[in-house]
Amino acid sequence: MKKKISDLNIPRSNREAANLELNQIYTPVADDLNKIEESIKTVNQVDFSWLALLLDQSLGVGGKRIRPALTLLSGRFYNYRLEYLVHMATAIELMHTATLVHDDAIDKSPTRRGKSTIFKDWGTEAAILLGDYLFAKAGVEVSDTLNVRAIRIFSQTLMTISRGELNQAKNSFNLKQTREDYIQRIYGKTASLFSLSTESGGILSEAPEPAVQILKQYGQELGLAFQIVDDILDFIGTEKELGKPAGSDLIQGTLTLPAMLLNERYPHDNPIKRLFLDRNKKENIQQAIEQVRNSDIVEECYRTAREYCDKACLHLKELPANAAAESLENLADFVVIRRK
Amino acid sequence: MKKKISDLNIPRSNREAANLELNQIYTPVADDLNKIEESIKTVNQVDFSWLALLLDQSLGVGGKRIRPALTLLSGRFYNYRLEYLVHMATAIELMHTATLVHDDAIDKSPTRRGKSTIFKDWGTEAAILLGDYLFAKAGVEVSDTLNVRAIRIFSQTLMTISRGELNQAKNSFNLKQTREDYIQRIYGKTASLFSLSTESGGILSEAPEPAVQILKQYGQELGLAFQIVDDILDFIGTEKELGKPAGSDLIQGTLTLPAMLLNERYPHDNPIKRLFLDRNKKENIQQAIEQVRNSDIVEECYRTAREYCDKACLHLKELPANAAAESLENLADFVVIRRK
Repeated sequence: MKKKISDLNIPRSNREAANLELNQIYTPVADDLNKIEESIKTVNQVDFSWLALLLDQSLGVGGKRIRPALTLLSGRFYNYRLEYLVHMATAIELMHTATLVHDDAIDKSPTRRGKSTIFKDWGTEAAILLGDYLFAKAGVEVSDTLNVRAIRIFSQTLMTISRGELNQAKNSFNLKQTREDYIQRIYGKTASLFSLSTESGGILSEAPEPAVQILKQYGQELGLAFQIVDDILDFIGTEKELGKPAGSDLIQGTLTLPAMLLNERYPHDNPIKRLFLDRNKKENIQQAIEQVRNSDIVEECYRTAREYCDKACLHLKELPANAAAESLENLADFVVIRRK
Repeated sequence: MKKKISDLNIPRSNREAANLELNQIYTPVADDLNKIEESIKTVNQVDFSWLALLLDQSLGVGGKRIRPALTLLSGRFYNYRLEYLVHMATAIELMHTATLVHDDAIDKSPTRRGKSTIFKDWGTEAAILLGDYLFAKAGVEVSDTLNVRAIRIFSQTLMTISRGELNQAKNSFNLKQTREDYIQRIYGKTASLFSLSTESGGILSEAPEPAVQILKQYGQELGLAFQIVDDILDFIGTEKELGKPAGSDLIQGTLTLPAMLLNERYPHDNPIKRLFLDRNKKENIQQAIEQVRNSDIVEECYRTAREYCDKACLHLKELPANAAAESLENLADFVVIRRK
């Protein structure tokens, strides 16, 4: 079943293969993922029709459900307690959705995953309050794990995420950022939640502490790779694949890895520099996309993503060998070859 | 020490007396309130200078600290566990601050308690993300109570608050609201947090269940009275007392009790009706304020607030008689006579 990344001619042609692979990867927890799906679906059962509508719209868009899968798979090594894992995974998906709803209000994004956003249809007020409601509902779900450690790291992760986003806001259109800044930023905005997903799976299945730490580390490295690939796709993806136009990071003035590399390679003049110095010059976005696509920057970014995936998998061997371990390893491959 | 409301000629002249009384009321927990103050002060100790600045600005404005006082006083009847109560009260103040920061972004308010808001100084993006950070930090604090029941009702309360605010947004400039709608709305936006403050004090001090329920009920009724008085003050307060111009509820199209009564008394034509039918006609705000001030509506609203306070105190007698019980009773008086 498993494909090695090195065997793949990464982009376009592998889209379907990648999707197929995701379903295969989830096999050991497929039934239980449906339980999480049902649990998420019940969130909109409230006796306030407008709220129900907003919940439906924000939660209905689905997505890859990588985070819930990570929690379930990470719970598969020791004492698999489905009832607690379902609450945890639901909580994580709700928190994730809440941050997206707020992000869309901040970025004034009309579409997400190809669908109209809460911000677009209902405005900033509804987006802020719905996000708050989802955070709260997530808090209730996580409290139903009855595990104070899991509850605590859940809130700590939201601190990390918000702090990371504030950091991103502070540094928008700032060219003077190092790779370290970049990694720290994507840890905050993405990897911290992946890490929560895997660590909590370990905690709730009563894994011994070293195993919890391995799972946590795996999630963190996987999350970094995931975000690097997201940042690549913002340059090379089609609008259909992305569910939004390419170049949206640049519109926000977010200096992602491909942009950073382009700026490093042509330090005197390049479209990133021109855009960041005068953010009104939007024609530079298309030029930056073209220039990145026609360079080896994409390859170099993929290499970096792959390195994080390799690091993610490095310690998995120390966990009990089972189908879940194989899935986690395959997931690391998927994260790199995916097209959306 | 105690003043009966009936002895008071409520408004203007009693402002100083009311403030003095608040300090006296807090006496049984004064030292411990300082510990909460210190605990809140440490929240801005983060190694990200902009975030530290934002935290300082949002948390520095103080306020009456009624909610933390309620938690401490409610914890005084059984096993007073200060270490847990401090975490709980800090969490509640942080959640309260987070909702205010988000509210200011929603209402585009330039000032709060006489000071510049995060929204005004830093914009919507910073306000959304700082609010999220504060919710998260609140979640970490409440998890340090190590009490899953307290943690759960904490998140449930935030659900109630967000839902209440969505309800308020949905019904802005809607004249067809009943008293019941109004009470439900102010329960969501204010009384639920008062109720959380007192209920959690009971839970964390291992109070027997009937006592927890009495404290919860007390908090709820007190919170309703508090918000009714807030809604009165938005008509009769000065800008200096309110820290913002009078009539700000009307600007948002929020139908508060005094506005509702004015509309009921003059069903054919009145400034509330004119404003709600054509929200651009802002001159009606000043007319509504004048008309309410010159009527017995203020008195009737105060009567309603007093009724809730009386109900709040009704069951306190069933708790052990101590200084805290006396303070809770006096606090119910304060809530009505306060001018800000």
